Amino acid sequence: MPVDPAAAIEVTAFAWVPPFARGQVRDLRVRWALEEAGFAYRTRLLKGERPTEYYREQPWGQVPAYREGDVQLFECGAICLHIAEQTETLLPRNPAERGRAIAWLFAALNSMDVPTMGLTIVGVFNADKPWSPGAQAAFTAFLEGRLQRLADWLGDKDWLEGQFTVGDLMMVCVLRSIIDEDLIARFPTIAAYIARGEARPAFQRAMAAHLADFVTEPA
Amino acid sequence: MPVDPAAAIEVTAFAWVPPFARGQVRDLRVRWALEEAGFAYRTRLLKGERPTEYYREQPWGQVPAYREGDVQLFECGAICLHIAEQTETLLPRNPAERGRAIAWLFAALNSMDVPTMGLTIVGVFNADKPWSPGAQAAFTAFLEGRLQRLADWLGDKDWLEGQFTVGDLMMVCVLRSIIDEDLIARFPTIAAYIARGEARPAFQRAMAAHLADFVTEPA
Repeated sequence: MPVDPAAAIEVTAFAWVPPFARGQVRDLRVRWALEEAGFAYRTRLLKGERPTEYYREQPWGQVPAYREGDVQLFECGAICLHIAEQTETLLPRNPAERGRAIAWLFAALNSMDVPTMGLTIVGVFNADKPWSPGAQAAFTAFLEGRLQRLADWLGDKDWLEGQFTVGDLMMVCVLRSIIDEDLIARFPTIAAYIARGEARPAFQRAMAAHLADFVTEPA
Repeated sequence: MPVDPAAAIEVTAFAWVPPFARGQVRDLRVRWALEEAGFAYRTRLLKGERPTEYYREQPWGQVPAYREGDVQLFECGAICLHIAEQTETLLPRNPAERGRAIAWLFAALNSMDVPTMGLTIVGVFNADKPWSPGAQAAFTAFLEGRLQRLADWLGDKDWLEGQFTVGDLMMVCVLRSIIDEDLIARFPTIAAYIARGEARPAFQRAMAAHLADFVTEPA
């Protein structure tokens, strides 16, 4: 099992989040990449208020932050790319194929996550506001356009470029964070793609470790 | 001048966009990276409706798409990283410093662009909706928190990690796309950082070439 208190790689995670966020916090993405690569890691759990010095590691005060010797990273995309660069399981060496995988990594975190997180901001963080339903409809429509393009691209392929890469890892993670399940259900190609990602043994191990680190009460 | 019809690198751009979008379309980011690197490129301008086959190059039907021999990319982040990997002007070779630059590249396109584009979606694309003002206030508040963290990080540094990198290039581009000028004015550190980026000769050349490619009427 890659989780090992003596491992050289350290990843930060939260000791507690509300139940709706469990299975979605972004340390999961990094744990999944580490499991695919087979790299051992230890976790450092953050409890309660973040100390001021944590913002030097993670400028937004979020998780994950990553440390490996003198390499100190933040942003799940940068961390997953750093891991991927060390294993062909996540990133082909051929320059043209490598570029495609990285293009999809950015596509997940920008073209797909902008409307996905936008929908979460209006539909979860502002669910009680009178303007929330109207804004949700606008983000859902925007997201629906992107999902249609993605479904068209996937067609009957298992993965975005034939073989699984870090681009698929991140795209699956962003797609499974879409709060509107009815929207995903309208795209069977996308629903099957998410299920294919979640079925990978490395994802299952990452999810188990992610969930096991939450204590039952706010710290 | 890097714009050269015989260049090996091809970047797509729009032949026409409405005046408010000029200076903001994402081919500008790639042109800036190419100017910093000193790499010649040619443009292919898209007029009117995108042909179906363009979605094979750029799955969202947007610009820029990038072609260089058998390397075919989309997403401005992936393209700028590909360019940066070929020049220390944009990406240090030392692994720890390289990782920091890439972390900021992802920070610009995810942590900063999610609320920035979110504000554009609610405040520009949906400006006429009754729910728009409420949603704008929510995205502005979210963005203000991120800008405060970024200003704290920058302090009195010129660039995010001391020397200019592809991370600064993208952060400046995302920040200058924030539609709320009053918000930027509340953070003099950020306003000065944007101005510092825009003052670079490579940015100026990229902007001139970006603007010169627009024809005066919708194609």
